[in-house]
Amino acid sequence: MLMRYGNRSYYISAPKKDEKMLQVGILGVNGYAGAELIQILLKHPRVQIAEMAARLDTPVPISSIFGQFKKRFDMECQVFHGVEGFGASCDLIFLALPHKVSMGIVPELLRAGKRVIDLSADFRLMDAAVYAKWYHEEHTAATLLPEAVYGLPELYRDRIKDAGLIANPGCYPTTVILGCAPLIKSGIVKPEIVVDSKSGISGAGKKPSPTTHFVNRYENFTAYNIGIHRHTPEMEQELSLLAGSEVRVMFSPHLIPINRGMLSTMYFDVLSEKKITQGELSLLYQEFYQDEPFVRILDEIPQTADVRETNYCDIWARLDERTNKIVIVSTIDNLTKGASGQAVQNMNIMYGWDETLGL
Amino acid sequence: MLMRYGNRSYYISAPKKDEKMLQVGILGVNGYAGAELIQILLKHPRVQIAEMAARLDTPVPISSIFGQFKKRFDMECQVFHGVEGFGASCDLIFLALPHKVSMGIVPELLRAGKRVIDLSADFRLMDAAVYAKWYHEEHTAATLLPEAVYGLPELYRDRIKDAGLIANPGCYPTTVILGCAPLIKSGIVKPEIVVDSKSGISGAGKKPSPTTHFVNRYENFTAYNIGIHRHTPEMEQELSLLAGSEVRVMFSPHLIPINRGMLSTMYFDVLSEKKITQGELSLLYQEFYQDEPFVRILDEIPQTADVRETNYCDIWARLDERTNKIVIVSTIDNLTKGASGQAVQNMNIMYGWDETLGL
Amino acid sequence: MLMRYGNRSYYISAPKKDEKMLQVGILGVNGYAGAELIQILLKHPRVQIAEMAARLDTPVPISSIFGQFKKRFDMECQVFHGVEGFGASCDLIFLALPHKVSMGIVPELLRAGKRVIDLSADFRLMDAAVYAKWYHEEHTAATLLPEAVYGLPELYRDRIKDAGLIANPGCYPTTVILGCAPLIKSGIVKPEIVVDSKSGISGAGKKPSPTTHFVNRYENFTAYNIGIHRHTPEMEQELSLLAGSEVRVMFSPHLIPINRGMLSTMYFDVLSEKKITQGELSLLYQEFYQDEPFVRILDEIPQTADVRETNYCDIWARLDERTNKIVIVSTIDNLTKGASGQAVQNMNIMYGWDETLGL
Amino acid sequence: MLMRYGNRSYYISAPKKDEKMLQVGILGVNGYAGAELIQILLKHPRVQIAEMAARLDTPVPISSIFGQFKKRFDMECQVFHGVEGFGASCDLIFLALPHKVSMGIVPELLRAGKRVIDLSADFRLMDAAVYAKWYHEEHTAATLLPEAVYGLPELYRDRIKDAGLIANPGCYPTTVILGCAPLIKSGIVKPEIVVDSKSGISGAGKKPSPTTHFVNRYENFTAYNIGIHRHTPEMEQELSLLAGSEVRVMFSPHLIPINRGMLSTMYFDVLSEKKITQGELSLLYQEFYQDEPFVRILDEIPQTADVRETNYCDIWARLDERTNKIVIVSTIDNLTKGASGQAVQNMNIMYGWDETLGL
Repeated sequence: MLMRYGNRSYYISAPKKDEKMLQVGILGVNGYAGAELIQILLKHPRVQIAEMAARLDTPVPISSIFGQFKKRFDMECQVFHGVEGFGASCDLIFLALPHKVSMGIVPELLRAGKRVIDLSADFRLMDAAVYAKWYHEEHTAATLLPEAVYGLPELYRDRIKDAGLIANPGCYPTTVILGCAPLIKSGIVKPEIVVDSKSGISGAGKKPSPTTHFVNRYENFTAYNIGIHRHTPEMEQELSLLAGSEVRVMFSPHLIPINRGMLSTMYFDVLSEKKITQGELSLLYQEFYQDEPFVRILDEIPQTADVRETNYCDIWARLDERTNKIVIVSTIDNLTKGASGQAVQNMNIMYGWDETLGL
Repeated sequence: MLMRYGNRSYYISAPKKDEKMLQVGILGVNGYAGAELIQILLKHPRVQIAEMAARLDTPVPISSIFGQFKKRFDMECQVFHGVEGFGASCDLIFLALPHKVSMGIVPELLRAGKRVIDLSADFRLMDAAVYAKWYHEEHTAATLLPEAVYGLPELYRDRIKDAGLIANPGCYPTTVILGCAPLIKSGIVKPEIVVDSKSGISGAGKKPSPTTHFVNRYENFTAYNIGIHRHTPEMEQELSLLAGSEVRVMFSPHLIPINRGMLSTMYFDVLSEKKITQGELSLLYQEFYQDEPFVRILDEIPQTADVRETNYCDIWARLDERTNKIVIVSTIDNLTKGASGQAVQNMNIMYGWDETLGL
Repeated sequence: MLMRYGNRSYYISAPKKDEKMLQVGILGVNGYAGAELIQILLKHPRVQIAEMAARLDTPVPISSIFGQFKKRFDMECQVFHGVEGFGASCDLIFLALPHKVSMGIVPELLRAGKRVIDLSADFRLMDAAVYAKWYHEEHTAATLLPEAVYGLPELYRDRIKDAGLIANPGCYPTTVILGCAPLIKSGIVKPEIVVDSKSGISGAGKKPSPTTHFVNRYENFTAYNIGIHRHTPEMEQELSLLAGSEVRVMFSPHLIPINRGMLSTMYFDVLSEKKITQGELSLLYQEFYQDEPFVRILDEIPQTADVRETNYCDIWARLDERTNKIVIVSTIDNLTKGASGQAVQNMNIMYGWDETLGL
Repeated sequence: MLMRYGNRSYYISAPKKDEKMLQVGILGVNGYAGAELIQILLKHPRVQIAEMAARLDTPVPISSIFGQFKKRFDMECQVFHGVEGFGASCDLIFLALPHKVSMGIVPELLRAGKRVIDLSADFRLMDAAVYAKWYHEEHTAATLLPEAVYGLPELYRDRIKDAGLIANPGCYPTTVILGCAPLIKSGIVKPEIVVDSKSGISGAGKKPSPTTHFVNRYENFTAYNIGIHRHTPEMEQELSLLAGSEVRVMFSPHLIPINRGMLSTMYFDVLSEKKITQGELSLLYQEFYQDEPFVRILDEIPQTADVRETNYCDIWARLDERTNKIVIVSTIDNLTKGASGQAVQNMNIMYGWDETLGL
């Protein structure tokens, strides 16, 4: 329904379908990844948001959930009752649902002929047993795991093109895999990495809790889930594939009192029989990512502010001769390259558009 | 029970009673005012915390609620079931309970011979009808209102000495009444005040909610409850008493993304038939508060950091000749002078100690 | 010079001129308004940044000043030596210079046939004597004051179209004039307004100082320049013009510890002979701004986060019957609608484009 | 000179000397360590601040530098011209001066019979050649290095008692040495440690700079000086002494946007021939620190807020069996246990008082 506000028109329910635009739906739109996805898609020249749904008591304009959209995008967010009532008008569905919920929905969406970009962790791990071990639940759609494509364009661009189901990477793994890939592939470092990551609070989700209470976080920081964070097997899977042998990650996430931003500091031991100079190390990274639109290799240590609300991953590499270690620092915006921006990048590849469109 | 941790001893349940120390209890200790009260009382040379209780599922060490007390003050916080099981060993009870809960408990505590300092709003308003209007509930202990003393020492020191029941002032009213008192009493301004107040987030309480979610508050600020905040009648009551006639307050509170701190900016119209110079205005404030240990009249605009974790109220006064208005700025720490510090100041007066003891 | 970074090209010095694009220059580009201007212009479909200059020791890529532009926009920022060496290739010049510097440069730019949008205060006040009084310096280009157009599109859209010199409004005045205009024009309130404004720290500029030191500002807030802030005469000039008679503003700015965002709370006395209802008040604001693309009249109190990095001004109006006062709250992003966004909005009007282009 | 403010007295210049109190002086009092030192000493029952000096243009009340002391401690801060004019009335001098300045002053102070606690790095490294290498300057008082005692009470309590010159530890080394000591001494880990530390902004000092500008730090974080930070040799020196052989530290500091607080995450490889269980690891730490008043071994990962404005160091230890690594997390307040609190702890030991006095 087209409404008028003063001399401007805006949409209360779905806008009139533009046949030349890709029609997309978003399930679980009421979290931070959902808001970021809307923000990006509203400026995307080839896409129309056709449907949105979330677990709500009653349908509401999305702008009553996210005030920044007031009088700019007031389209209704439906109550999510199940797949049958959702997505008929859509070609592509983004799932911004919690882990364990996605796997109950994806099979049906695929059967209905939809392409799916799943922002949850449900289809990221190839091995259902590993999923069960880290997520403490049996995978109910394990037969789909082989066809899911891990949506990290820098590694899987070719497979993403034709994918029906994209498992959009986790935020921490995005920083870590991009930060480690050149070095791990080079074979000059031990397959044991210390990863010390730091994330803004939006990574803890939108649900109010003592963890996300302002007074508990402001003028405070801490580590959490050291050694037991669920993103660990995702990093190890991808790095092991790159190495061609098993890689172990000692992963320690920290919670930093800002809204958006993620930085990982990664420590490698150079194999005693190998030699590398700082110049070679820099070149290794420059060349590995030379064709990538969203990876910037920097000469200075990156800071999160420089990637805020962008899809960039900034990376810095240093050889420490004193200790014969290599330290890599990488930063992203956890909601953009770490979630919704990367999802849109994947969409652009799936539909054959310029990969940077709308980003 | 006395425990040993290494060579240090600390208390798991109540410590051994020191007969020379005042025994106090704290009900509702698990909020921010409770934590601040413990913090102050632990350093107070005349007081022992004998009992603590809160609405919990099971008794826990207070340090499991407030990590800063770990291995420093691990005394057990009881489950609050009602007055009968609480406070037998105490002379004085601090109530850090929500509004509307206090009034159900205070009568019984007074009957049991306890002195009570109530940090809630329940006994601040003299008129039960005003309470009912602003708090949307009938007052169930209205007969006690006449004997409750409004615990603002700068105005009611003499009555506090012998009080059985102290109604500890609200945080906003503390800044506003102290900031306005000299001017209102002087009779040179109109009895209509614009009060624009700003508070840190701890004022919104410890309960997680969208309002207190870190991501909603960080890099953001806003106003709330303009014209309808419940502290309004408390300000008007006390300022009207000072003026000897009705004073009206247009009160607008704002939420500022810091933990602790409160600042009120107050605007007065100088009566057209009255004259005052900047020098006289400054002197008026200096003299009004010259004997006060916790009010500082400053030559520069105060900032909240300078009163952080102190019981001071800093005040600045300016005559604006262009507009013939007077602007007053006052600051406190909302948890100290705005709550628990002021409660301790009241206790010091009630027991005839130096008013600044432990503060 | 066109450089290649991997398979991507980016510009080190000026890009190849696209004849169909408007060529613009930015003087004083190294402050926050400059960064915001670049951010917006890089996405603007009709504009090319042709030249940039600032007071520097040596020319540097702009991305070495603002890291977010690294490998995205590395064009060189020239050393500003004076007008003669700058702007030859430009049609329009944005001046993001300090107050008092602009007035020395504008005359020459105009003589050279450039159109100018000046973000400083130098051409906002019509009366050179008022300028001299508040800025403590004689105006050296007073003869240009009559032709400068105050660049608040909501009031002066028609005059902006053909203007050669735009005096882009101050951030505080933008919130205040937009927030007061309907009411002041209606004639139902006294011509004396209390304005209590709050600004993020970017408003204090990029120069390091004790005022902008992180440790001084974090977990702290304060007021400053109460009654003496230089934006006061700018507000009074425009509101007096709207009222048709003199309006006085009692203005108190506050510094809030966030980066971007501004909120003004404005207090009016309803004239005793006039009557207005809440419904009429809301309608007054709705109708006044019904055709405005960047003003949103809200039913709830606005918050700064909802306008962050947008050109919106959100406004809320409330009649307080108890005190017969009206309270208006308005919010903007001080760097966007309060500076560079508004400058681009003015440019869009000047060149006959859709007013929202690129915003 | 004793002044009266209302009925309260406070000191403008030095207070009347109390013979029973230790007379102390503070040089370089105008930084954050100085403010913290005053804050602690004002509540210390055995100490009187007799003199303060700093590099200033003119003498000023200390409260004009640190507003929190207004009307509470307005004693004059002298202009520092050199040792001859300072400290005559003092037994003990705290030096809160920059690195490289202290070493020019300490010899003279010692000759004058003063005991000295130096908060700078100048006397922390035993080897003048190491100092020259990391601080890029020759040590001018190298003959004093052997008699300086490294003021970490948990390791050097006995030597501190009789020391004339204390080299107060750096903030990062305090977290790292306390966090590593039990494990390094145990001999079960490789002598190569990865240390990933995070500090609040007060660690960057009080001087305004782009690094400390609010807008650059808020909603942002980053790493700095990876592999080249000057605290590295201090950690290696003390850990090597504990190990009895050379220990190498790969040290990466990060800047977190809060004022106070420091957290270090330390990664160890368990030697392949050694075995340890989580229980044994916890016991190792419990026993090592069982008599320490300021070290708390926790079962949960510590957070900086719990040590804020205290002298505690909170430590947590975890064996990660998957990777055969041990992770230690330790937190302090960088201005308290990381600087001035530890200085007072050292003073308490030097004068035979209860080590926790005033802390």
